[in-house]
Amino acid sequence: MKYKVAVLGATGMVGQKFIQLLENHPWFEITSLAASEKRIGKFYGEEVNWIVSSNIPKNVVDMEMVALNPKDVDADIAFSALPSDVAKKVEEEFAKAGFVVASNASAFRMVDDVPLIIPEVNADHLRLIEIQKAKRGWDGFIVTNPNCTTIVLVISLKPLMDLGLKNVKVATMQALSGAGFPGVPSLAITDNVIPFIKGEEEKVENEPLKLLGRFDGEKIVPANIKVSASCNRVPVIDGHTEVVWAEFDKEINVDQVKDAFKSLKPLDLPSSPKEVIIVRDENDRPQPRLDRDEGKGMSVVVGRIRKDDSNLIKYIVLGHNTVRGAAGASILNAELMAKEGYLKS
Amino acid sequence: MKYKVAVLGATGMVGQKFIQLLENHPWFEITSLAASEKRIGKFYGEEVNWIVSSNIPKNVVDMEMVALNPKDVDADIAFSALPSDVAKKVEEEFAKAGFVVASNASAFRMVDDVPLIIPEVNADHLRLIEIQKAKRGWDGFIVTNPNCTTIVLVISLKPLMDLGLKNVKVATMQALSGAGFPGVPSLAITDNVIPFIKGEEEKVENEPLKLLGRFDGEKIVPANIKVSASCNRVPVIDGHTEVVWAEFDKEINVDQVKDAFKSLKPLDLPSSPKEVIIVRDENDRPQPRLDRDEGKGMSVVVGRIRKDDSNLIKYIVLGHNTVRGAAGASILNAELMAKEGYLKS
Amino acid sequence: MKYKVAVLGATGMVGQKFIQLLENHPWFEITSLAASEKRIGKFYGEEVNWIVSSNIPKNVVDMEMVALNPKDVDADIAFSALPSDVAKKVEEEFAKAGFVVASNASAFRMVDDVPLIIPEVNADHLRLIEIQKAKRGWDGFIVTNPNCTTIVLVISLKPLMDLGLKNVKVATMQALSGAGFPGVPSLAITDNVIPFIKGEEEKVENEPLKLLGRFDGEKIVPANIKVSASCNRVPVIDGHTEVVWAEFDKEINVDQVKDAFKSLKPLDLPSSPKEVIIVRDENDRPQPRLDRDEGKGMSVVVGRIRKDDSNLIKYIVLGHNTVRGAAGASILNAELMAKEGYLKS
Amino acid sequence: MKYKVAVLGATGMVGQKFIQLLENHPWFEITSLAASEKRIGKFYGEEVNWIVSSNIPKNVVDMEMVALNPKDVDADIAFSALPSDVAKKVEEEFAKAGFVVASNASAFRMVDDVPLIIPEVNADHLRLIEIQKAKRGWDGFIVTNPNCTTIVLVISLKPLMDLGLKNVKVATMQALSGAGFPGVPSLAITDNVIPFIKGEEEKVENEPLKLLGRFDGEKIVPANIKVSASCNRVPVIDGHTEVVWAEFDKEINVDQVKDAFKSLKPLDLPSSPKEVIIVRDENDRPQPRLDRDEGKGMSVVVGRIRKDDSNLIKYIVLGHNTVRGAAGASILNAELMAKEGYLKS
Repeated sequence: MKYKVAVLGATGMVGQKFIQLLENHPWFEITSLAASEKRIGKFYGEEVNWIVSSNIPKNVVDMEMVALNPKDVDADIAFSALPSDVAKKVEEEFAKAGFVVASNASAFRMVDDVPLIIPEVNADHLRLIEIQKAKRGWDGFIVTNPNCTTIVLVISLKPLMDLGLKNVKVATMQALSGAGFPGVPSLAITDNVIPFIKGEEEKVENEPLKLLGRFDGEKIVPANIKVSASCNRVPVIDGHTEVVWAEFDKEINVDQVKDAFKSLKPLDLPSSPKEVIIVRDENDRPQPRLDRDEGKGMSVVVGRIRKDDSNLIKYIVLGHNTVRGAAGASILNAELMAKEGYLKS
Repeated sequence: MKYKVAVLGATGMVGQKFIQLLENHPWFEITSLAASEKRIGKFYGEEVNWIVSSNIPKNVVDMEMVALNPKDVDADIAFSALPSDVAKKVEEEFAKAGFVVASNASAFRMVDDVPLIIPEVNADHLRLIEIQKAKRGWDGFIVTNPNCTTIVLVISLKPLMDLGLKNVKVATMQALSGAGFPGVPSLAITDNVIPFIKGEEEKVENEPLKLLGRFDGEKIVPANIKVSASCNRVPVIDGHTEVVWAEFDKEINVDQVKDAFKSLKPLDLPSSPKEVIIVRDENDRPQPRLDRDEGKGMSVVVGRIRKDDSNLIKYIVLGHNTVRGAAGASILNAELMAKEGYLKS
Repeated sequence: MKYKVAVLGATGMVGQKFIQLLENHPWFEITSLAASEKRIGKFYGEEVNWIVSSNIPKNVVDMEMVALNPKDVDADIAFSALPSDVAKKVEEEFAKAGFVVASNASAFRMVDDVPLIIPEVNADHLRLIEIQKAKRGWDGFIVTNPNCTTIVLVISLKPLMDLGLKNVKVATMQALSGAGFPGVPSLAITDNVIPFIKGEEEKVENEPLKLLGRFDGEKIVPANIKVSASCNRVPVIDGHTEVVWAEFDKEINVDQVKDAFKSLKPLDLPSSPKEVIIVRDENDRPQPRLDRDEGKGMSVVVGRIRKDDSNLIKYIVLGHNTVRGAAGASILNAELMAKEGYLKS
Repeated sequence: MKYKVAVLGATGMVGQKFIQLLENHPWFEITSLAASEKRIGKFYGEEVNWIVSSNIPKNVVDMEMVALNPKDVDADIAFSALPSDVAKKVEEEFAKAGFVVASNASAFRMVDDVPLIIPEVNADHLRLIEIQKAKRGWDGFIVTNPNCTTIVLVISLKPLMDLGLKNVKVATMQALSGAGFPGVPSLAITDNVIPFIKGEEEKVENEPLKLLGRFDGEKIVPANIKVSASCNRVPVIDGHTEVVWAEFDKEINVDQVKDAFKSLKPLDLPSSPKEVIIVRDENDRPQPRLDRDEGKGMSVVVGRIRKDDSNLIKYIVLGHNTVRGAAGASILNAELMAKEGYLKS
């Protein structure tokens, strides 16, 4: 018996990745595809501009799309690939109506009683669920995953916390798929770099503090670090590459950092990669086209770990933005919730 | 009467830019093209794989190439577009033989008695010429310009020195033309980023200290700042984009930085741009394809100046790597020397 | 005294090229920029997403946009960069109201009494103007230029007509700018080719028959040739590259074809290139990035002329799709009309 | 028990694809990697610039490379990914020494007694093997596969032969990987198309006549068709897209052609795709990034079948140039030979 799952916002870039990753999932089965009004009643295969692979998975091609309305959706879990403004209203309605909402949208990420989760980083923050349900009187609840750039960064920062991390500077080179579809016009990015992504730097600077924070039984106490981000769009299809300077409160060396990266253990979940962080020793890796699919897109790859100063390390980290950074993140969160007993069986 | 100039290493990417920029130059006229042994005696137009524009300039198409040998070259100035290992030997021979060598190669940049010059930044360092000639007993001399990434960066750092700059972090997104021709294979960089450029970070971290240093009458006293660089190759034809964090020894604000950028004045030389630093206020500029040709490639363009912390500013700076960052840099240096009387007339 | 000109559809890709090409034009001066309803009353510089060069020309940056309404436009000539469906209604209104409409839109191209003009190919078709005005009782009139792909192709076909051309097959590799802005999503075209452009093949197959046809005093008698097209989008910013097979009704050789290409003479107009067709002898030319700007984008470049069979020739032709193929085409038409006395002075 | 196989030319682009496709092959096991002199005795993992995926397969990473010499190679089959000039000498030596040479090189393709094979097209041409061995007195023999562009084209032409195909025009848009590594410089192809590939058109025009010819018991009688090709390089990583005009000796319609494509049956071999030709009905397919991996890269995909004239059809065909068009082609040939009993067991 599999859990029944719905995808909210099924035709967009992230919606497509949800559908692709959920094909043949051992625990989850798509039973509803919900989309904006104009698509209701239409067949998924006829409406979607499918661009993530050659063919639309057969299990959804003839599925009729339904409204973004709890009454029309038959599912235990609602995966949300909605734009943030729509998510704000719709996700709340689904949670109220008893759904477990596993959301990739930013709307609720920084809300006090909503867990913002990367399973390998802060699984214990799921305990906010009880607080959320109690406070709001909802039958269901909302759990979110971070922004794609944040996830890749924070997976690499987590093991550095015990080494005394206090200050992070990150310059990103982000993939086109992060802007969705149609997203970035080809005329804007061919032979070009765009040194700005709207709203991105704020997310990358704030979300890590919650993710790396501590649950004190009632709320998340933010981590005492500072993150400064400068975000750029580059002509790469998938895979965010991030240049990181990590400053510590004491002297640090490369081996300590490398050992810390390797020490982050995967959970035993269907979408868990064998290695959470892959450390490459070549001086020209990671590269997005070569490394984004590691661990089926669920590993992050680190390289070029260099000591800059007594307490300053720089390195490159890369991850697949629509898998580990979006749809795969929500699915991993749902798997964690299933395993931890947060889903009704 | 124009100065006679030679281009050493005339068929490569930077050699081609020298030829392109020197076409119709008001002060300089190409009289010799020198290249590696196998090309000697061949016509430039038949040997070169010309890729910087549609047609090879008419003044050089039928020029016979000569050896990298002072005896075979008839010129006052030798512009060097040689690879560093060749430059080491050849440039010295030319200087010995009485030539003014204006070099884009890295071989002599950090040598104590060799000026490393950006005219708007440290024109007074040309006074090392007398020391060089005296010490070595040469008839001619060598003057160098910095690495392409360094030039773009340091033009933006120069006006910040008086504000108390002490620490710089720079993550670069560098153009393909920086690797010369054939350079980066298309299979290596399509849909990709390469987070490493051999030898680049060392240059970007060291050259600024000399450039921003002080000539004390005998030598350059390095500037008391620290630069940390992380250099990346991106699929862009021309134009290096650099993400900069600049830390000061006191509180700083955006307007001070902006005013400082605008205060850097152009010199009155044929290749001088009208504005050395163009400050753009849009939040998505500078972009390489749109902004690299500003000031015919001799301006650098700055944008996204943001305050990060009380004494920390971040911004983006962009410049044309083969014009301001290479051939144009050497030519501007030669123009400065002509004006300052360092060339025999 | 210059003619006053308006640009209809001023903010799109082709509208921007009109503005760029009209800056400092010796005969024409922009007096009105007309755009869709939501932009009326707004300043051009604040509304446009300018992507064709670094800066918006100063003469239009502070121009207030007006409605697509003859009453609101003060001009002698209205250059139309409108989408076809809008053009149908608006261009007629402007012509009725006495404007000379020089249109890049497809709406009226194939209408019997509307000239479809490439000045070097069929200037005499302008005589349809009298017929158009007489028949419709309009004060002004409409003159059109062909589709971008057609223009490049037909300039190369014109000189072949006298050699007995009868059958043409053309496979195109078309630039991104041909789809306007935002146009082709980067995710759709990076590392990809799209073998289809909506409505394009029909235009490329039909328009040449009119262009190469004969004005019999009353109407255009279509040329007796057949064109078959297969149109593809490739990741190139500007410049359409076309692979052509030209079949003749008698034996033909490469020299005849080459001589014919070179025999097509430019007119003496401000935007005329020095050479209409540039023939390159290298076996790997023309290439869009290297050759699209020949003649300031108004030349077409031909290469790889090969004999395939006794009466079959194949070659490559390339032209700048938004200059010679769009805005520049309309402007050249207007210049021709000015010279030929079709404009009131 | 698996056949032992060697890869000759193991470090190049096609050599890498052989290794990738042979990992876990049910019938073949790599026992030798042969390369040029300077690599002998070195470990594959240390020498290769691996670019076809994230990691070098574990079975070869520590394999020591051997000389291109039959004495040093322990294998039943030698897969040749050698450049044509080297192949000429080396492949002959291996065949003489008793190896079955399955070659992707062009050196022997058009030699009378050497089979040029696409299993689904002309498996019966393998009977040339007996003739080759008899004539040359070799213990082994050479079997070749066609050029990458030819394979994709001819798979689509084979089913059209019975419909009266007589004349083919093909304009190609070929992937970067077809030029090997380092291959096409990024500066040469970014924002560009190169309308020429050395030697390619000759291969595409000649090889189909042999492939589609008839074995008369002694030799191949070439097919009585004519092929004209115009070959272009485009900025696509993998996948050749080909625009085809097919002219028949009688009237033809789209459905006949579509049915013919679908009628080409796969063989029952480990690398056979489920469908040899996939026909897509959307008007914008096939596209290289979306369709090149169909059938694990062994299917070709056809689309846009249109009637042009009573006996003229045009369509697009696409295939993976380094899988179906190179390494996969040789492997499929070897599988066919194994099944047909041409390999000693």
